[in-house]
Parts: sequence; C-alpha cells; structure tokens
Amino acid sequence: MINGTDLLELINYRQSDRAYLNTPIEKEKLERVLEAGRLAPSACNAQPWKFIVVDKQELKNKIADCTSSKVLGMNHFTKQAPVHLVIVEERANFTSNAGSVIKNKQFPLIDIGIAAEHICLQAAAEELGTCMIGWFDEPKVKKLLNIPKSKRVPLIITMGYPAKETREKHRKSTDKIISYNSY
Amino acid sequence: MINGTDLLELINYRQSDRAYLNTPIEKEKLERVLEAGRLAPSACNAQPWKFIVVDKQELKNKIADCTSSKVLGMNHFTKQAPVHLVIVEERANFTSNAGSVIKNKQFPLIDIGIAAEHICLQAAAEELGTCMIGWFDEPKVKKLLNIPKSKRVPLIITMGYPAKETREKHRKSTDKIISYNSY
Repeated sequence: MINGTDLLELINYRQSDRAYLNTPIEKEKLERVLEAGRLAPSACNAQPWKFIVVDKQELKNKIADCTSSKVLGMNHFTKQAPVHLVIVEERANFTSNAGSVIKNKQFPLIDIGIAAEHICLQAAAEELGTCMIGWFDEPKVKKLLNIPKSKRVPLIITMGYPAKETREKHRKSTDKIISYNSY
Repeated sequence: MINGTDLLELINYRQSDRAYLNTPIEKEKLERVLEAGRLAPSACNAQPWKFIVVDKQELKNKIADCTSSKVLGMNHFTKQAPVHLVIVEERANFTSNAGSVIKNKQFPLIDIGIAAEHICLQAAAEELGTCMIGWFDEPKVKKLLNIPKSKRVPLIITMGYPAKETREKHRKSTDKIISYNSY
C-alpha cells in the first residue's frame, strides 16, 4: 500500500484548478473518483449526500453559468471543465440527527466536506484537476437538475484535465494553527 | 506520484478504528499527519481551524472521559488512543464569511470536514488508525484545553496504532447516491 511520504506528495500537489483543457474524462477515471466519494466516512455512517454527475455539455454549461458572476467577475473558468459534480445534502439518519440536535452541530456539512475531498484527492491521483465552488445560484441549479426545493446544495466540484501552465500553488501559512496540550 | 488505483486502495483501507495498541506514535509520523491537515483546502483559503495535539497522558485521558458516556455506553475505546487531535473552529476570513452569509451556508464546517479527512487519510498511510468523534462534552473539553468559551469544537480525532484483529470494515451501500444529469 502507499506510504505516508507518497500521500503527502499528492496532498501537496492538489490545488484548486481554475483552467482546464478541452479533453474528456475517461469513464474509468470518473468511476474511481465517484467510488472514492462513496467510500467517504460520515457521522453514524449516515452518508447524507447524493452526487449528480453533470456531463451533458449543454446542461453542464448552464450549471457553469450559475457559478459565475458577471457583476463580481467570478469563476468564468467553470465552463471549461467537462464535468461538474453537484453535491446534494440529504437527510441524515436518526442517530446523526440526534447528535446534531443534542450537541448543536451540523454533522452533514462536515460529512460533505469529507466526501468532497475524497473526490478531489482521487481526481488528483487520476491527474485530473478540480475546484470546489460554494458560491452559485442554488435555486437555479436545483431547477436545472430537478432537485427538490427542500434540499440544499452545499458544493459543486468542477473537474477536468488542468491546464498545467496555469497551476499556481496556494502557499499555506504555518502560524499558530498547531498547538500542544492547550489552546 | 501515486496513481488512482493506489489511492483508492488506501481510501478503501481507512476505517474508523475503535481499538488501539499501547504503542506510542512516532514524532515524524505525527508531524506528517499535521502537515496533511495544514495543507487542506478551505473556502477562500480561510483555514478556519486550529489543531490541538493532546499527547500528555493524564490530560488525554481526561479528554477521553469527555468523549465517553457511562449512560449510553459509548466510546470507551477513546482512552486507548495515545493521541487525541482536537479541532477548534476559528473565525473565517471576510470573503468566506460573506459567502456564508449571502449564500446561507456554513463554509467553516465543510472546511473542517476536509481538514479532518486529510488527517485521517494521512494517518492511514502511516499505518495509524483514527476515529472522528463528534459527540462529547464540549464545555468540559474547552475548559481542559483553555479554549475560549466563544469557540466551537466540532471534532476530536483519536489516533494510534490500531488493534488489527478488531478491524471490521464498514460496508457502504451503493444505492441511489450517484445519478447523471438529473436528481
């Protein structure tokens, strides 16, 4: 099995890719990416998610339009990505919901972060680029994909072969995020 | 770099380990695990987290007591783990907060799910076991670690060498979590 050094190299390589090549994603790669999402852990194994793969070009471009803003000049790259993965938040099971209520936490959102990152790391291992998008016209996305109005859509992940010349590493700060035995 | 098959094998191997050996964690392994957490992506790169490593045995056992319930008979394994990682939710930056408010989402919780899973996957690659705990006496944990009352503590991760004979794989259902181009 892979060792720690190998995984850390992949984790270090992953970034949010905001430019994509006009190259389709192989079916077997996409299936392994979805399998990685499926295998994500969740509170009380509730799996409070549904993944919608949007790969029909016309529909995908409509979803891309929901993620970009003419006013703010944001996210115009999303149309380049051949596939969008739309993550729908589903109702958790009884024990997870009880924990959320009693402990005043929202476990499904944490769970969806976990699953989304399984997807992005697996994509990176498949030489695919991804970008998680949290800012989009949610009502319009729900209408386009026939998602019930009562559901929430926390994230859309764009996916495709990255335009490598545009890869710029986000450097992380080291300061003060780690401490030992006390805040 | 590692390929998709290798990573999927690791993802498939990872589980929530609820029994640990009485073996300390090597410093360099723990450091790579923390580095994996540090490199996690977050909305607008806000990094809304702080990781507290609890490795002093007496203090760690007190934290373990906060995660187990005599009444419900829950989580008595936590005391076996030599290290607990306590994840504190920190204030996000302006753009992430604006997105959370305008789009009615809580990006920091998604971010913390992402970082927590970087930690658990890296631990798995280091042959360490982990279990994310969401149910614990949060006020008591904050008091023990001098965490300000205003902060939230979404997760505690137990970490140690797993007692392998107890490893039981949670099987995931495949049903209906993936669809194409429509809900």
